[in-house]
Amino acid sequence: MTHIATEGLNHADLYKLLVGSVVPRPIAWVTSMSATGVVNLAPFSAFTWVCHDPPLVGVAITRRRNGELKDTARNAVEHKSYVINIADEPLLEPLHLSSIEYDPEVSEAEVLGLDLSPSSLIDVPRLTDAPIALECRFVQALEFGPARQQFIIGEIISFYVRDDLYVRGGIDSAVLRPIARLAGPNYAHLGEIVRMQPVAEPRRA
Amino acid sequence: MTHIATEGLNHADLYKLLVGSVVPRPIAWVTSMSATGVVNLAPFSAFTWVCHDPPLVGVAITRRRNGELKDTARNAVEHKSYVINIADEPLLEPLHLSSIEYDPEVSEAEVLGLDLSPSSLIDVPRLTDAPIALECRFVQALEFGPARQQFIIGEIISFYVRDDLYVRGGIDSAVLRPIARLAGPNYAHLGEIVRMQPVAEPRRA
Repeated sequence: MTHIATEGLNHADLYKLLVGSVVPRPIAWVTSMSATGVVNLAPFSAFTWVCHDPPLVGVAITRRRNGELKDTARNAVEHKSYVINIADEPLLEPLHLSSIEYDPEVSEAEVLGLDLSPSSLIDVPRLTDAPIALECRFVQALEFGPARQQFIIGEIISFYVRDDLYVRGGIDSAVLRPIARLAGPNYAHLGEIVRMQPVAEPRRA
Repeated sequence: MTHIATEGLNHADLYKLLVGSVVPRPIAWVTSMSATGVVNLAPFSAFTWVCHDPPLVGVAITRRRNGELKDTARNAVEHKSYVINIADEPLLEPLHLSSIEYDPEVSEAEVLGLDLSPSSLIDVPRLTDAPIALECRFVQALEFGPARQQFIIGEIISFYVRDDLYVRGGIDSAVLRPIARLAGPNYAHLGEIVRMQPVAEPRRA
């Protein structure tokens, strides 16, 4: 084993090790709305839930080099709502290309030719072709480290699920073909899905 | 599309939708140490980094039904250090079985016949066969929701990386065969890895 202490590593080296270790990652493909009504779109793969009741999800969003918030973070904080879309395999190319940062008044969805559909409970649209979309209400922005990196927490107020995926109140993992994020510009499709025996009730002595 | 508002859903229904939507997830397979020196081991798939400089990772850990902390959360908070091991495909079975909750004085690693190796900077051991292990120092425990669900944040103070994976200061995603967590008792291997063109520098008008 190679042992690499993090003390003294620069942020590029730290980032490289992190994105290679915390894998495979789900991708929050976020539609958000600027103050002038432009729909921004960008993917973030530091994404998890932090609580399930209420359903709270967090997305880590670094700042720009000049310390400014990226469009998605600024829109989430100011507009107070956004949509996390989940991409499937056919959407890989626009998903990847939406990571190019355009000016705030440019809609990445429009540039990439992605259709938008209105949401139900908020005025930020979702991506029509995303098999799952989570309407979120902004809850809080945590900040970490000297660069005040953002971890944006939102409450899911509704789920959109493509009808064929929605089975017995849950989502069929085998039918959904989600995209995994790896290190570098690498993504993965899912391979074999292994269904394990549910574990027994806690065996307490 | 099926539209499901979350208001009024019970926590089991919310959980089912969350674990099916936020996919595929990386797994933090955590070794921690109890007050009496027992090494506990358990997997958690609500796992992300929240900052890369310093490298901070968060793991969501629900409480037991009676409100008590689970062994891993209690050990992290009290002992102030723990190891996040990353499993690869050959480790799927013990990974899954380690989600059975034993009494705190039972070492899941021992029950499952998993070898431990000493860490370098902390006294909590890592799993010898894990291809990657992250030595972590506890930073803070955030709490969310009425059940005060824990989101445990730690700083990675060192990375252990199996020699064949460690390439040019990063980790070779194609050689590492990590396990993805899906909904229910489902896991996935990775399928095709797609290397996209790195995106151009931000195209700012």
